[in-house]
Amino acid sequence: MSRFLPEDATPEEISRQADLYGPFTQAIRDLVDAGLRTLVDGDDVRTAQAEIEAVTARLRKEQIDGGFGVRYTPEGKGRAWGNAVMGLRNAIAPPLTITIDADGRAVSDFHLGAAYEGPPGLVHGGMISMVLDQMLGQAAGAGGRPGMTGTLTIVYRQGTPLGDLRAEAWIDRSEGIKTWAKGHLIGPDGVTAEAEGIFVLPRWARQLLVARDEQPPEFFE
Amino acid sequence: MSRFLPEDATPEEISRQADLYGPFTQAIRDLVDAGLRTLVDGDDVRTAQAEIEAVTARLRKEQIDGGFGVRYTPEGKGRAWGNAVMGLRNAIAPPLTITIDADGRAVSDFHLGAAYEGPPGLVHGGMISMVLDQMLGQAAGAGGRPGMTGTLTIVYRQGTPLGDLRAEAWIDRSEGIKTWAKGHLIGPDGVTAEAEGIFVLPRWARQLLVARDEQPPEFFE
Repeated sequence: MSRFLPEDATPEEISRQADLYGPFTQAIRDLVDAGLRTLVDGDDVRTAQAEIEAVTARLRKEQIDGGFGVRYTPEGKGRAWGNAVMGLRNAIAPPLTITIDADGRAVSDFHLGAAYEGPPGLVHGGMISMVLDQMLGQAAGAGGRPGMTGTLTIVYRQGTPLGDLRAEAWIDRSEGIKTWAKGHLIGPDGVTAEAEGIFVLPRWARQLLVARDEQPPEFFE
Repeated sequence: MSRFLPEDATPEEISRQADLYGPFTQAIRDLVDAGLRTLVDGDDVRTAQAEIEAVTARLRKEQIDGGFGVRYTPEGKGRAWGNAVMGLRNAIAPPLTITIDADGRAVSDFHLGAAYEGPPGLVHGGMISMVLDQMLGQAAGAGGRPGMTGTLTIVYRQGTPLGDLRAEAWIDRSEGIKTWAKGHLIGPDGVTAEAEGIFVLPRWARQLLVARDEQPPEFFE
């Protein structure tokens, strides 16, 4: 719980970091895809492995202890660059760029390639739940109702082919510290999965916010 | 739907491939982690990026078109090496190794590091749903009731710290083509999340199996 890190980075510095780490992380994403799909011969695979290990060793000479966490600027703006779904610095993240439209709905257009496969040719059902969890959480946060997922239900309507997809989420209703959010995933043949989630701001987070006399952060998860 | 690939690989050849691609993919997983956590300076990041891009270009000289799919040996044994949760060749996968115990329960001990973060220091709620989706699906398949996820509900009991975790899943009941599976995730302080899922063998998969006069595969998803 110790990684709500305040920082004094200026907007220019954050922008500079995004320009550095964005393309770097994308290169790792491409390697994940290439590593999964390559058919080059065994010696070439072993050579690639040795080179990757050498790069990793150099990158590890100086590194964060543990996860990236969420960094907060003096303005209270959060940067969840380590987030497994949205993180600019996380090669596991597709990553999703989520915008909030005029009606307060969270919307994201994204691409899921070979690395997100479950059944042959289809997105892994668990990846669908992961994307929708993030989308619902963002919709709740954007509506001033941030929280951690309390309950998440996904109904799978049809297989979701790998490729270009769209997700949408919105707040259904709120009651006390609970917010109900809904959303869906859209593939080339329409809605493939529907989600409903209950988001709750946990006690430790509420206390932290009270102690800091702050509003709940926009990007909590 | 075209990637249920039969293949004539011998057990020896499959074992040789596992020995080649297992460590190779692990090297990419380590790079994902190092890329997220590194604090080396900008020039070192740019140098690493160029080297990674060069490795990727060489790996792409010959590659699978699309996802890895699921390969079947003549014995009907499936290899889901591309699977986003279990895949030996998928650097996004932790990967989970799932065993079936004497009571037919699916069990897995695994480690989730910085790349799986959601809230600071905690596993992303969506990653929890992804792991449990796979676990419940494996439990259903191991009980002779394979299928795709129809509905998945996750109840989050407490935050799940990054680190060593255990997941367990089992079949609750079956009815026609539907199977209800349950499971949970266990962290250092006990159960952190509970799951229930309904798994359904879709029409196209049933037809494929009938056409091939085969039993449902053990590893469907």
